[in-house]
Amino acid sequence: MGVTVGELAKSLGLAYRGDATAVVNHAASLAEAGPGSLTFLANSRYRRHLADTQATLVVLEESLAGECPTNALIAPNPHLAYAHALALVMPRHRPPPHVHDSAVVDETAYLGERVHVGAQAYIGPDCHIEDDVEIGPGCVLMRGVMVRRGARLVARVTICDGSVIGESSVLQPGAVIGAEGFGFAQDNGQWIKVPQVGRVVIGAHAEVGANTTIDCGAIGDTVIGDGVKIDNLVQVGHNCRIGDHSIMVACSGVAGSTEIGRHCAIGGMSAIAGHIRLVDGVQVTGMGQVTKSLTEPGVYSSGTGVEPNRQWRRSVARFHQLDDMAKRLRELEKRLRELDGDRDAEGP
Amino acid sequence: MGVTVGELAKSLGLAYRGDATAVVNHAASLAEAGPGSLTFLANSRYRRHLADTQATLVVLEESLAGECPTNALIAPNPHLAYAHALALVMPRHRPPPHVHDSAVVDETAYLGERVHVGAQAYIGPDCHIEDDVEIGPGCVLMRGVMVRRGARLVARVTICDGSVIGESSVLQPGAVIGAEGFGFAQDNGQWIKVPQVGRVVIGAHAEVGANTTIDCGAIGDTVIGDGVKIDNLVQVGHNCRIGDHSIMVACSGVAGSTEIGRHCAIGGMSAIAGHIRLVDGVQVTGMGQVTKSLTEPGVYSSGTGVEPNRQWRRSVARFHQLDDMAKRLRELEKRLRELDGDRDAEGP
Amino acid sequence: MGVTVGELAKSLGLAYRGDATAVVNHAASLAEAGPGSLTFLANSRYRRHLADTQATLVVLEESLAGECPTNALIAPNPHLAYAHALALVMPRHRPPPHVHDSAVVDETAYLGERVHVGAQAYIGPDCHIEDDVEIGPGCVLMRGVMVRRGARLVARVTICDGSVIGESSVLQPGAVIGAEGFGFAQDNGQWIKVPQVGRVVIGAHAEVGANTTIDCGAIGDTVIGDGVKIDNLVQVGHNCRIGDHSIMVACSGVAGSTEIGRHCAIGGMSAIAGHIRLVDGVQVTGMGQVTKSLTEPGVYSSGTGVEPNRQWRRSVARFHQLDDMAKRLRELEKRLRELDGDRDAEGP
Repeated sequence: MGVTVGELAKSLGLAYRGDATAVVNHAASLAEAGPGSLTFLANSRYRRHLADTQATLVVLEESLAGECPTNALIAPNPHLAYAHALALVMPRHRPPPHVHDSAVVDETAYLGERVHVGAQAYIGPDCHIEDDVEIGPGCVLMRGVMVRRGARLVARVTICDGSVIGESSVLQPGAVIGAEGFGFAQDNGQWIKVPQVGRVVIGAHAEVGANTTIDCGAIGDTVIGDGVKIDNLVQVGHNCRIGDHSIMVACSGVAGSTEIGRHCAIGGMSAIAGHIRLVDGVQVTGMGQVTKSLTEPGVYSSGTGVEPNRQWRRSVARFHQLDDMAKRLRELEKRLRELDGDRDAEGP
Repeated sequence: MGVTVGELAKSLGLAYRGDATAVVNHAASLAEAGPGSLTFLANSRYRRHLADTQATLVVLEESLAGECPTNALIAPNPHLAYAHALALVMPRHRPPPHVHDSAVVDETAYLGERVHVGAQAYIGPDCHIEDDVEIGPGCVLMRGVMVRRGARLVARVTICDGSVIGESSVLQPGAVIGAEGFGFAQDNGQWIKVPQVGRVVIGAHAEVGANTTIDCGAIGDTVIGDGVKIDNLVQVGHNCRIGDHSIMVACSGVAGSTEIGRHCAIGGMSAIAGHIRLVDGVQVTGMGQVTKSLTEPGVYSSGTGVEPNRQWRRSVARFHQLDDMAKRLRELEKRLRELDGDRDAEGP
Repeated sequence: MGVTVGELAKSLGLAYRGDATAVVNHAASLAEAGPGSLTFLANSRYRRHLADTQATLVVLEESLAGECPTNALIAPNPHLAYAHALALVMPRHRPPPHVHDSAVVDETAYLGERVHVGAQAYIGPDCHIEDDVEIGPGCVLMRGVMVRRGARLVARVTICDGSVIGESSVLQPGAVIGAEGFGFAQDNGQWIKVPQVGRVVIGAHAEVGANTTIDCGAIGDTVIGDGVKIDNLVQVGHNCRIGDHSIMVACSGVAGSTEIGRHCAIGGMSAIAGHIRLVDGVQVTGMGQVTKSLTEPGVYSSGTGVEPNRQWRRSVARFHQLDDMAKRLRELEKRLRELDGDRDAEGP
């Protein structure tokens, strides 16, 4: 078992230095690597570990190859090349293409070729599961769900009525796709449910993290673009649209009817208000508080950072006085100008 | 299939304009509506779409009926009337009143009339399920759970020992009701579990969102009032009490033993500290940081908003200097008063 | 049923005052207690309820025993003693040591003695379940999962390939252990999945809250120490290390490769950045925004607190002007020094 340096170089179309016959069979970090380890160097802060690494193969940029004490795979983007190499060295276990005895598949559901349905899973009426789909143990697909070719539902994923999962997308355990959005109308102080009749439509090569929730549209669809990667415990409200190749990091949330552009990055624990629009290429750092549309690409941030609690208590008290402070500052400037004016009038 | 304008007007007790025999069979937004569409206009920002809508029926206020190019249903609260109309036009699919073969119902559990239990569900010992309850696929009800008449557990909901779900309440997939609260006693630097022996009691017509968690009481109960609507990924700590008709938006959390009044609204990603009290009618906007009781109704807010990252870095640095800045400002004011005093003493 | 005051005192090795034969059979708060109630007083703010309590037994400090109108159990740490006493008075119901008919256990899995496997659970290939483990209804254990002696998976917990759950640890419903971390490499604007080949290793006597997610390592393991208590809806990213006896409160999150020391406490809704280190004994209060390593123990805080919305709007506007305000303040100080200099030059 294992893959040789030469085979990897050939498969990835990359140059190598060292022994083509050396074999790697697992991955490890540069510092913890040993015989048989595949590793990589993409972040300069780990460069100090290069000289002493015990790895069998390091993926790195050409400019660093001279420092590498072992076999090297030369790549312009070492992280990417490492990803491809590791997929060859440690291929993912694929469950067998059959339906587990304990699974329940409604008789009106369609299953394509080589579909895996795991133990205790449920596939409801009128679902349509294309070829090569993996539906892990404990998944629940309600009515009329479409899962396109090669998608993978790891385990215990719930997909509600009518949602569409794109080709080769991956849904981690506990994800809930297409639950009824938070739509209520006021009736004399009480909240009356507004039927949520749209779907969730997820594009190709998307990823949805563990225990993440994406609500169905109230009217029309909630749309997750191609290649969108959503981390764990993220909330996407009804009728949001997330553009292709954008990412949302863990614990972030976007309220209903907001549109996030393409190639955006929403940092962890960020909150994006509803009914706004973020253009392509917006990055929001962790704990961002976005209450209005962002019309220019760029990096945006929020929050106060962290400070010792005793100092913070004072900072917060002052924050609440900020408008007053600003007015007093302006008043001082005005007074000083008057003083200067007086002095000028007095002459030197 | 479909419902006529006349039937809707009659059912809802509302006036209409136009063709009573026109039929609607689905919902769409004002801008995307077409033949057969039911839509509504409740937010003035969408008024510009009214003149060109292709909808068959628009629910709107009387004052706008003159601008409506198609059939109109006249309602003082168009959003509410739309909710009621849509429930008639697109009635929710009700699963059949029977227990799926793959479900497991403990022999000591009681099931009322017309109860639906979905595939792969589990109902444990001494559970009591009243009439017309729907328990969707993959739900887990542990010991002694009470589900009152007409409640609906969409799918894969977990309810722990002894919790009570109120009449006609709705629980979205992944919700966990009655898990053991976060109660530990210190023992020389180690945390020892304190048994959590209370329940969760949820009132009538409440809603709990996908993957939301409501912990059981440590002593006594965690209580969710009638008509309370809780969005996705919300945390409610042990022994909290949430007053009737309050709402909590996605990703918010409230720590243990806090009491939230009636008709409150907690914005998304807000954090409410433990052991405090919010009076009736408090609204907290998104990302609110509530560390102390709020004793007056009103709208409260927190956070710094968002700004370009470069500027934010400077703002944060200054935030940490705020107390110093405030003191220097006061010193300047004092010096200037002294200067003025000197000048006054000098005379003009 | 019930336990006498004398039995509790003897079992816990504590002194008591009052009637050794009095029986307690449930727990209640000091204010709501009645005949048969066990209660405790550990927080001085509840002392006012002591004189009127109807409890049968109060656990409290010796100094307060004189004020206690009923039987008293004297403990240096009343909360801890209450926890131990309650575990005797209301012992947790243990499910029977057998595998439910509806559970699926792969033929290659090993089950120790007295293991409980609940309804609709699934235990996959090569899992190793030690003695006295409880696996509740609806749990999913994928491939090669190790669950050590006496651990308890309450219900519907998902554990992915190869993860290890420590002795006597408790996992609440909906927890997802070992999902694939959020690791992607950039490829011309697209995100390519990096195989996540590490595990999650959870120590002994740890607790993981409902719907909490702990990702597997990208390379190497994500490690949760002994006695770590993690609340609901918490995210722990790939390759994090959380030191022994630390706690993370609900809705907090820690990004990948961060190391949190021993005896730390991370407040609710806090966000800890990736690739940093918090030393032993760090406490972060609720909504902490930790973007850099914390190298000294102590209490740290973030956020602006809450204020009325109208005032907050002004505070936020000023926050964005803070750097400008600071510069103007400095300028004023300089001008005033010059004025003073002029005055000094002029003489009195």
